[in-house]
Amino acid sequence: MGPGPVNADPRVLRAMSAQLVGQYDPSMTEYMNETMELYRGVFKTANEQTLLIDGTSRAGIEAALVSLISPGDRVLVPIFGRFGHLLREIAERAGAEVHVREIEWGTVFTPAQIEQAIRETKPALLAIVHGDTSTTVAQPLDELGDICARHGVLFYTDVTASLAGNVFEADAWGLDAVTAGLQKCLGGPSGSAPATFSPRAVEVINARKSIEAGIREAGDAVSAHPIRSNYFDLSMIFDYWGPKRLNHHTEATTMLYGARECARLLVAEGVDSAVERHRLHGAAMLAGVQGLGLAVFGDLEHRMNNVVAVRIPDGVSGDAVRGELLNDFGIEIGTSFGPLRGLVWRIGTMGYNARKDTVLTTLAALEQVLRRSGASVTGGGGVGAAYEVYQDAAGS
Amino acid sequence: MGPGPVNADPRVLRAMSAQLVGQYDPSMTEYMNETMELYRGVFKTANEQTLLIDGTSRAGIEAALVSLISPGDRVLVPIFGRFGHLLREIAERAGAEVHVREIEWGTVFTPAQIEQAIRETKPALLAIVHGDTSTTVAQPLDELGDICARHGVLFYTDVTASLAGNVFEADAWGLDAVTAGLQKCLGGPSGSAPATFSPRAVEVINARKSIEAGIREAGDAVSAHPIRSNYFDLSMIFDYWGPKRLNHHTEATTMLYGARECARLLVAEGVDSAVERHRLHGAAMLAGVQGLGLAVFGDLEHRMNNVVAVRIPDGVSGDAVRGELLNDFGIEIGTSFGPLRGLVWRIGTMGYNARKDTVLTTLAALEQVLRRSGASVTGGGGVGAAYEVYQDAAGS
Repeated sequence: MGPGPVNADPRVLRAMSAQLVGQYDPSMTEYMNETMELYRGVFKTANEQTLLIDGTSRAGIEAALVSLISPGDRVLVPIFGRFGHLLREIAERAGAEVHVREIEWGTVFTPAQIEQAIRETKPALLAIVHGDTSTTVAQPLDELGDICARHGVLFYTDVTASLAGNVFEADAWGLDAVTAGLQKCLGGPSGSAPATFSPRAVEVINARKSIEAGIREAGDAVSAHPIRSNYFDLSMIFDYWGPKRLNHHTEATTMLYGARECARLLVAEGVDSAVERHRLHGAAMLAGVQGLGLAVFGDLEHRMNNVVAVRIPDGVSGDAVRGELLNDFGIEIGTSFGPLRGLVWRIGTMGYNARKDTVLTTLAALEQVLRRSGASVTGGGGVGAAYEVYQDAAGS
Repeated sequence: MGPGPVNADPRVLRAMSAQLVGQYDPSMTEYMNETMELYRGVFKTANEQTLLIDGTSRAGIEAALVSLISPGDRVLVPIFGRFGHLLREIAERAGAEVHVREIEWGTVFTPAQIEQAIRETKPALLAIVHGDTSTTVAQPLDELGDICARHGVLFYTDVTASLAGNVFEADAWGLDAVTAGLQKCLGGPSGSAPATFSPRAVEVINARKSIEAGIREAGDAVSAHPIRSNYFDLSMIFDYWGPKRLNHHTEATTMLYGARECARLLVAEGVDSAVERHRLHGAAMLAGVQGLGLAVFGDLEHRMNNVVAVRIPDGVSGDAVRGELLNDFGIEIGTSFGPLRGLVWRIGTMGYNARKDTVLTTLAALEQVLRRSGASVTGGGGVGAAYEVYQDAAGS
């Protein structure tokens, strides 16, 4: 019940135990095509280039940024938590001239602040996190696409922590590039990064294409400014996932089986229903910790559905509580980074763990552990408040 | 029965269906430590920095090269097949001044040729493939470590296709950096890249360390020449796998389970025994295709144990034979790249598929398909010759 990775859906793990097939076996290439189509549903996009990057969610971020950014490009990174710093770091290593705007952890930017920063910095790319588990808030993105379009700025977001647990619309919101991971609301293991790229992003990336020497033929593209990475060169990855099937890496077959099953289960449930499920169980967890008498951190209006930051009461050892929950109750909750270190626990309700039984069990166990640690808690107040949320939902 | 990826060992797939645990759960960090120790056995090294890169084998190559090479460094890449071109390509994108030497596909370099090239180019790094499946030969490496040491050159090799199927000794041969993959002789799926780095390589890499801004604290390192990639920054990956457990990517838990099981099975079998198993079944397959009357490609003295290149007989459609084997017999064999395209099939005997039953079944099926395609074959000659190899081995 931490901020991720969390337990995977057992159906995903079962899908990952299937035997491998060859890289160009017709059934393998069909699985790749199915995976592309399923993730179009998850991202809510019509983008042809919707595929997997073979690595963790951080690999997806780097593939997008290193392929979109030519050295010297100006990039704007509004930072409201730890993963904004990561976007800055990756953009800097890609050779960008990075401009940042920072706000206090727990808050989000207004569209006017973003537009003002774009006017000031004239970036080629806006790179911003959607939901940042380090602060538990989600940056509203729905008005930023229009702003980027007006200023001719490419619009990238990292939805690793938010996708499928919070409302997200790649096309309706005007995104050019989006990357994710499996280990949060998608209910799978870390190690595969679903991603989608708009036709405008594809045009920018393909303009930098260079076919590698080992498989280059007469007339093939050789760019004067090739993408700095081979592994993350999206122009080559597009050709591997597309009808050309041009050899690049050897697709991580088992991770593909897992990523496909994550999306298949989400599409079968309905992506909107999955978001509503996260909203319900997240609301129950929030009510529950408040019902125990604990304070929560951050702008609740922009809280992510799938994680809540709970202030550690005075006089209580955050690490001791986490240790007792893990060792005696088998329940993991999260610690925190940076300015929040030692101040809050982060409790997740996401993916396979966004369930009534996990919420109630966690609240029951937390009450007992807090009581034993000497904290003042409202007996039954956590579970009771969560039950009320479920009863209201059932009655509505 | 292609050049890889091949069927995974079912025990590896079963290990990958285990439920996830948290990133810093004591059992997870213990699995990481166990994995490091198991791969020291597989690579035959005492290197502390022996770990997994989260991505395919190509990710392992890029992590090693981008972390070892500072832009402008001279790198020598002797090329004897497709994957030498890949090393050149990745080193170039890392900003190296790359010098190549090329020889005909199917042959290998002599130590004297390598030393001569080092004298001429004075590289900081020698990057060379061990076994290249594109040509089916393995470059002898045992004398190159001394040469590199004499000239102060770092020594890197890619053993993706050869490890555990051919004799390899990271420390005895003087390697500074070695990267691999699971999908060949290790019997697992693509998607995790075991790698090992000598103390000398670690020193070069750590001299470039920069802690990322999101988790940087007072006094932490900030390099003036940071590694160009965040995801592949080995100095940060060392800190994640080491006692500091400094957060970097979220380890790909399921792939780690798989990589650990691949190594556990190899160490239980004995790495030398696994190499001998590949030698035996590779010899049986070679004798078998020759027994069918087919010619083989490449320098047989330096042939890899785990793959053989078979010349497609005149008048036979290579693709039609491969299609019939796959669709009617459920057996996949490989096509070829570059100068060998259309000229040879590549037949593998590796990992879980390095078995007597797979060798005999493949030879029996190949005889039938060749006969139906109008080729002249020696009836029973393939299976008979393979049986002889097995009988000789049993009698010795």
